[in-house]
Amino acid sequence: MPDVPLARLLVTCPDQPGIVAAVSGFLRNHGANITALDQHSTDPAGGTFFLRAEFTTPDLDLTADALEGAFARVVAAPFAMDWRIDYAARKKRVALMVSKYDHALLELLWLWRRGELDAEVPLVVSNHDDLRAEVERFGVDYHHVPVSKDTKAEAEAQTLALFEDAGVDLVVLARYMQILSPRVVDRYPHRIINIHHSFLPAFVGADPYRQAFERGVKVIGATAHYVTEDLDEGPIIEQGVARVSHRDSVSDLKRTGQSLERDVLAKAVRWHLEARVLVQGNKTVVFA
Amino acid sequence: MPDVPLARLLVTCPDQPGIVAAVSGFLRNHGANITALDQHSTDPAGGTFFLRAEFTTPDLDLTADALEGAFARVVAAPFAMDWRIDYAARKKRVALMVSKYDHALLELLWLWRRGELDAEVPLVVSNHDDLRAEVERFGVDYHHVPVSKDTKAEAEAQTLALFEDAGVDLVVLARYMQILSPRVVDRYPHRIINIHHSFLPAFVGADPYRQAFERGVKVIGATAHYVTEDLDEGPIIEQGVARVSHRDSVSDLKRTGQSLERDVLAKAVRWHLEARVLVQGNKTVVFA
Amino acid sequence: MPDVPLARLLVTCPDQPGIVAAVSGFLRNHGANITALDQHSTDPAGGTFFLRAEFTTPDLDLTADALEGAFARVVAAPFAMDWRIDYAARKKRVALMVSKYDHALLELLWLWRRGELDAEVPLVVSNHDDLRAEVERFGVDYHHVPVSKDTKAEAEAQTLALFEDAGVDLVVLARYMQILSPRVVDRYPHRIINIHHSFLPAFVGADPYRQAFERGVKVIGATAHYVTEDLDEGPIIEQGVARVSHRDSVSDLKRTGQSLERDVLAKAVRWHLEARVLVQGNKTVVFA
Amino acid sequence: MPDVPLARLLVTCPDQPGIVAAVSGFLRNHGANITALDQHSTDPAGGTFFLRAEFTTPDLDLTADALEGAFARVVAAPFAMDWRIDYAARKKRVALMVSKYDHALLELLWLWRRGELDAEVPLVVSNHDDLRAEVERFGVDYHHVPVSKDTKAEAEAQTLALFEDAGVDLVVLARYMQILSPRVVDRYPHRIINIHHSFLPAFVGADPYRQAFERGVKVIGATAHYVTEDLDEGPIIEQGVARVSHRDSVSDLKRTGQSLERDVLAKAVRWHLEARVLVQGNKTVVFA
Repeated sequence: MPDVPLARLLVTCPDQPGIVAAVSGFLRNHGANITALDQHSTDPAGGTFFLRAEFTTPDLDLTADALEGAFARVVAAPFAMDWRIDYAARKKRVALMVSKYDHALLELLWLWRRGELDAEVPLVVSNHDDLRAEVERFGVDYHHVPVSKDTKAEAEAQTLALFEDAGVDLVVLARYMQILSPRVVDRYPHRIINIHHSFLPAFVGADPYRQAFERGVKVIGATAHYVTEDLDEGPIIEQGVARVSHRDSVSDLKRTGQSLERDVLAKAVRWHLEARVLVQGNKTVVFA
Repeated sequence: MPDVPLARLLVTCPDQPGIVAAVSGFLRNHGANITALDQHSTDPAGGTFFLRAEFTTPDLDLTADALEGAFARVVAAPFAMDWRIDYAARKKRVALMVSKYDHALLELLWLWRRGELDAEVPLVVSNHDDLRAEVERFGVDYHHVPVSKDTKAEAEAQTLALFEDAGVDLVVLARYMQILSPRVVDRYPHRIINIHHSFLPAFVGADPYRQAFERGVKVIGATAHYVTEDLDEGPIIEQGVARVSHRDSVSDLKRTGQSLERDVLAKAVRWHLEARVLVQGNKTVVFA
Repeated sequence: MPDVPLARLLVTCPDQPGIVAAVSGFLRNHGANITALDQHSTDPAGGTFFLRAEFTTPDLDLTADALEGAFARVVAAPFAMDWRIDYAARKKRVALMVSKYDHALLELLWLWRRGELDAEVPLVVSNHDDLRAEVERFGVDYHHVPVSKDTKAEAEAQTLALFEDAGVDLVVLARYMQILSPRVVDRYPHRIINIHHSFLPAFVGADPYRQAFERGVKVIGATAHYVTEDLDEGPIIEQGVARVSHRDSVSDLKRTGQSLERDVLAKAVRWHLEARVLVQGNKTVVFA
Repeated sequence: MPDVPLARLLVTCPDQPGIVAAVSGFLRNHGANITALDQHSTDPAGGTFFLRAEFTTPDLDLTADALEGAFARVVAAPFAMDWRIDYAARKKRVALMVSKYDHALLELLWLWRRGELDAEVPLVVSNHDDLRAEVERFGVDYHHVPVSKDTKAEAEAQTLALFEDAGVDLVVLARYMQILSPRVVDRYPHRIINIHHSFLPAFVGADPYRQAFERGVKVIGATAHYVTEDLDEGPIIEQGVARVSHRDSVSDLKRTGQSLERDVLAKAVRWHLEARVLVQGNKTVVFA
């Protein structure tokens, strides 16, 4: 764990020679020390370039604002970069959404309490009141926002207001069984993570464990992905799999799958919090 | 490895009390010795019952024919069984079909030569002539049967005649890139095994590695299944998976996947040869 | 889930012809209905035979006691069987032991509360008081029994008395960091399950994650095993593995490993509770 | 696949600020284009720094020799680097050693023929003559160099002479069952790869599948490592694992394990050929 300030730079831009030299030279010149650097090019000729750098700033010669301003001018503009810098000292604020299944939610709260998720968790929003006691025990606010066909717009407005008030950076759907409308999705582009209980793109839609049972697959999976307006179609962050057999009933698949869901969602959230995930089109680059 | 004759009994029937007792009592009474027995019920009440028994016949009091006749009358009829007995001494005869990719074919031929596939392999049929030398080196006949839109019926008739002459029990499509028509499929029900190069039901159809690349999945797979008239929809025998990342190009996925294909197809074929696979509707029971 | 009484028969005996017929015939004759049967022989000639049968008793013509008496005389004695029948209606009583790490303990308590571990959990015994509040929240008694070199005998006597009072059938060491002396181990032969945080037999002894880090392995593991007098040497019930890389620090290995530990221990405990584990010498037969 | 010359730079040095900037700046200034860069630090303060860069040299302003000379002076010396540059155009020359098991050898020869191992394979050396025909079929020279206790020194001298003549860069022990003496090992430091048929450090020494069977493990493995003077103790490059059960005999473990061995050894060799493996002490950094 670093005693000195830690920051993470994420860059996406058209690939061309000299990007690594420009970025690393800039950081070096201003007293930042690169401790990890990952880089990926879809194609050296005419492709897209992705970079993640972790750096410490023991001897920074500028304020963070001034550093970012200089980076924008000197490095980002010439290379037409899409970029951002995250500072570990400013923890991301995460809202969890859940319906009735507690497994994915509790996994995240447990890991968070153990210090394994580097975030603030100011609130949980649910369309049911069932999990209030479990959540409040962790010292997290629980908001019951029921959703019906008629009240959906209102419920989403209320939810967005709660997120706004809490300064939410990331929304995690820990088995939240309502479809979010564009008014929510568009507010948090690539900042809403969902866990789908199948190995996407197999078994989109409802009741994937029953679908898997009926198709007779020998391996099941779980998929964490960013939510977009196309249900179950957003960029995949992580997937996990487990073997099953003819002996497994639908409820066996469910039990095995829930263990996968917990694991896969936790990994995806941790990677997002550590700024390891970049999105390109409908795919992700994960520097894990 | 048994010195005494080994046989395998497969049974499917409506579940009801007393089936195991009836089967094992019958075998016991006629001097057969059960060395392995697996059993599965989809539901004890009104479900389907599956059984596989391996038995040796050191002291059989009947000929095999008489044993089967007695079993039919005394056990199978009262329980309305669908059943068969395979004798290890009568090796199954396997035809391999292939187009141009050699990896799955060579894996099978190599395992066969090592004695790891308990079968006869009288012939390979291909719509190309490319792999002739490779195949003939194993002492296996190679038949080049070109297929075009106009000659498909004729080519299939020729293929069926070859199978007939060779007394084929099982057909394995080791990356055979032509769709078999019902006239072939119906002749070998649940006796044609195909390897599909994706984790079915994801990515049916053509070029699944490219589809997987474009969807940005983090795990790829391969699926061995029985061929039915619905392309890529037959009962799944086995599936294998491997992790991939954003660093993998389509050709990396292909290379990783081909290793899966070899492994998954070889398992499925071995299990079929050892009479470990029962089909129920569009699913399999695999006593592996 | 069965509405009718469910029982599980476990048998170990010298292999010889006729065992399956004798067992299944006996159950059939007394109105029991076999719903699952698994069988394993180490060698048909002179080997050991293992059998697990699940049966329901909708029409039993005897009391359980009389059934067991008859089985002992008619079936078990002639075949020299080591055997027992477990009744699902009589839930096993499980004591958990823990030191300071909470992950394995909480996983078991949480699965138990969800109904995924079919057992009673009357108490937790710990050599520290740290986890009292967590445990009591589940309605489970927490006993703090400190252990020092001088007080070990006394502490173990106290622990055994607690187990006795609670009618304990199974002890689970959910990261309990004290070595149990023979006076405890011998009281619960093959009824104490431990989770060791490595892929045994690699990295026995202390601090296995550091050992794994220093050896530079690319895969780590966790092992659930029955406790015997030889530390880390008892029969292995289940093992799980996960990939790691040079990027992982000791604490990364620990975090990844703890997820494995939870999963592997839960599986081993569930299989024990469902009477799926037989011990032969220093190995297990797991009918999972 | 690159049309322009591709090179790979590997660097190990004490960690300090500015290394990435120095390396990438140097390459940029001389017209080389970085297409992939991976970097790892064991500890930003006082640790060791590892870097791998792939670069193309479409516009190099120097000869390769001059580039290396300038790099040595301008970059390597100030940072006390241990470094080398590999050129893809100069394929590494690989000698394979084998005894009687053909599976690992054939896998490598197959992959090589398919173009999946970017190397020259001038010769196979074996202490038996059994696999001559298999090897020569691939157009590779086969040298039978018998080894007995009395002739070991002589046999190793002969082997080294063969390697010398063939200009060997890498030696792969594809199940070669003789222990190499320091006179061979020291000639090819971190350039001899062995496949050990267990999950090291479990089951060192002879007959690991039998050891695994007797310990009753539920997962087996295979390990590719560099050969050092301590048998089975060299730096691990890659490991693979597979589940097994009580149903598996020693020969089942062997069959399952041989599939692992093929896969794990092939990965390790490919990574070495692509200059993805750095050695630090007794561990590896694998930029895969």
